[in-house]
Amino acid sequence: MASWLPIPSKSHFSLANIPFGIISTSAEPTHRLAIAIGQYVLDLSAFAQNNGFSKLADFPADRLSVFSQTTLNDFAALGRPVHRATRAYLQDVFRQETPYPEILKDNESLRKQALIPIGDVQSHLPLSIGDYTDFFAGRNHAHTVGTLFRGAANALQPNYNHLPVAYHGRASSVVVSGTPLHRPWGQVLPNPQAKEPVFQPCARLDIELELGMFISKGNKLGAPVDVNNAEEYIFGYVLMNDWSARDIQQWDPWVVLADALEGFRGKGLENEVPPKKYLAEKREDSILDINLEVSITTAKGNKTKITQVSSQNLLWSWPQMIAHHSVSGCNLRTGDLLGSGTISGLEAGTQGSLLEQTMGGKQFVKLEGGEERKFIQDGDSITITGWSGTAEDGLVGFGECEGTIISAIPRD
Amino acid sequence: MASWLPIPSKSHFSLANIPFGIISTSAEPTHRLAIAIGQYVLDLSAFAQNNGFSKLADFPADRLSVFSQTTLNDFAALGRPVHRATRAYLQDVFRQETPYPEILKDNESLRKQALIPIGDVQSHLPLSIGDYTDFFAGRNHAHTVGTLFRGAANALQPNYNHLPVAYHGRASSVVVSGTPLHRPWGQVLPNPQAKEPVFQPCARLDIELELGMFISKGNKLGAPVDVNNAEEYIFGYVLMNDWSARDIQQWDPWVVLADALEGFRGKGLENEVPPKKYLAEKREDSILDINLEVSITTAKGNKTKITQVSSQNLLWSWPQMIAHHSVSGCNLRTGDLLGSGTISGLEAGTQGSLLEQTMGGKQFVKLEGGEERKFIQDGDSITITGWSGTAEDGLVGFGECEGTIISAIPRD
Repeated sequence: MASWLPIPSKSHFSLANIPFGIISTSAEPTHRLAIAIGQYVLDLSAFAQNNGFSKLADFPADRLSVFSQTTLNDFAALGRPVHRATRAYLQDVFRQETPYPEILKDNESLRKQALIPIGDVQSHLPLSIGDYTDFFAGRNHAHTVGTLFRGAANALQPNYNHLPVAYHGRASSVVVSGTPLHRPWGQVLPNPQAKEPVFQPCARLDIELELGMFISKGNKLGAPVDVNNAEEYIFGYVLMNDWSARDIQQWDPWVVLADALEGFRGKGLENEVPPKKYLAEKREDSILDINLEVSITTAKGNKTKITQVSSQNLLWSWPQMIAHHSVSGCNLRTGDLLGSGTISGLEAGTQGSLLEQTMGGKQFVKLEGGEERKFIQDGDSITITGWSGTAEDGLVGFGECEGTIISAIPRD
Repeated sequence: MASWLPIPSKSHFSLANIPFGIISTSAEPTHRLAIAIGQYVLDLSAFAQNNGFSKLADFPADRLSVFSQTTLNDFAALGRPVHRATRAYLQDVFRQETPYPEILKDNESLRKQALIPIGDVQSHLPLSIGDYTDFFAGRNHAHTVGTLFRGAANALQPNYNHLPVAYHGRASSVVVSGTPLHRPWGQVLPNPQAKEPVFQPCARLDIELELGMFISKGNKLGAPVDVNNAEEYIFGYVLMNDWSARDIQQWDPWVVLADALEGFRGKGLENEVPPKKYLAEKREDSILDINLEVSITTAKGNKTKITQVSSQNLLWSWPQMIAHHSVSGCNLRTGDLLGSGTISGLEAGTQGSLLEQTMGGKQFVKLEGGEERKFIQDGDSITITGWSGTAEDGLVGFGECEGTIISAIPRD
């Protein structure tokens, strides 16, 4: 799919992608909607105000104001058919042989106003998050960590294969890529035999490679979502680093729409336990296939790729997570964020946390320049990236999620 | 403190109270701020628009718009000195010998417009909740339940006396008093030896008597709150029923301001473990003294008081919960809700859950009319009430928090 806008072949933001985000610029600090395309973003607020959507038939005419909001929530709440139509229309607008050249390709004034070099924009949290639920669907991670703590015979808790386990997290704790974070203080036992905890900066700060998913439309309290209709409740995905012991979720700022990943579906990990009816999906290709990588850059500037793994290393699919989350009647709302849990393979170099890669802190991970790590040190920067597809067909990627740990705030 | 407005002596909403809430009426469905006073509410939107606050000196003049909002968040965010001044001013307005008779006492037109019989208003969720954290500060409850599950020797987890334990809950799951709730479905093990869970409506539905607290002003990510300054972050309190196995928090709609309970402070449960410095309070009277009661009304109409207990049955104070919650750098936000955890004494008739009162479902609680319960049955209605003070000085009460369980939604 070629575009009249030059898009580098290795760009994560090809015409096959069209991820949505929230941006501002130094000239115009108001937060506003945008899509990323190649080395540019399209300011959707300016685009909408200048009749950019005038040829988009499948859009509720009285709802164009969603593009003038400061978050993606109102757009997300319109539901997947509208997201699908909007993305397809924007692909048409940017296509080499666009049916609507007057909209942008031949409209120099709007191009100048609405197409902004991506390096000139600030990215912000794309949605106002209602609730954040972190699942634990990466069975390899659960098994390896469970083995470290409880031995191989009891690695998985008895309910693990029966339902997608999750915990509720704090919506306030979600920050966008690039935000530096202080090492946290906390009470810890100095050794396993100790009776008395000590209050100190966390010594075992870790990362967790995850995917995040945003809810588009919600369900009413008391009205569970059918697992086979649950994809209609998905807005899109982000890469996420669940800073462990920090209780901070950090993500990349571009939301890849569910529709952009339709071509990258597959099977997840095999479950020997037959799912209960409310978790039984008709389709067998509900687990996304995304290439995920984690790199660490030390304060000395040495950058090492420490993880390369496919997102198919999950036991539970997003529809199953949604169905289980709502089965008791719990209401999900537009903007709710769900985390997949840490995504890991079983071999060295495929594991999404240092806990696994260091066998519980027992051995070092070797880094470039002769450095090594058991856990994250002050000044370390973690970069997560991920993409599906090929440069030929256009990559559907997430960009990068980056975060640096700075020293703990001094206290007495 | 006498008022020109007749206030029944047993009213929870005396001149000593002045709780805040959000109301609507059938004539005017817009949600708006109000205070409860005796058998009336004062519509603060109408009051503010008609110069009701014109004699309130200690109020930022450009922020009067907070009274035209649909939630209490903007008012809460103004901070405790403003809440204190606003409450004191409204007490002055309603006082028998009010210094401002022209504001309301002698202003028949505004009285007719803004004073509404409490039975004519609908109550709504008072704040838009960012995050909800449920603590576990009721040590008697923790000890009794821990004994049931792990035996008396291991009743409390090793960290229990060292820090206020909490879990993160869902903000979407909080509903106002009076909302009927379906019994939830879930996966449960049919017996302790079973390997295979079954999917069925919850058979052990329980209640948990709690206090809820709302955050007024928030702290920034990475900037912990000092325990000795934490009261400045408290907006007010509600009664809460944490429906157990239902994961729904239900509360009474009136928020009693922190200042209204200043006269009802005391000591909580003794902690043999000296607190870490970040949890060490200078004052020793940080635990509130509120009389709490739980009643059950069966489908047959028999009403029985099953619990009577003081809120002093807590190990950790609200300032300690705030300090611990933020110590890792976690940011609290205006409107965040914190729960105390179940409040229980150790004797029969003082325990805030049926799990405790029935010794883990082993014995019945006797009800009026010869009925009995181990757990909640369909059609049962639970009422929680609570108050401090005396009828002579004016009660500072919460009203009632009521909820009825209706049958599970049928599913195949």
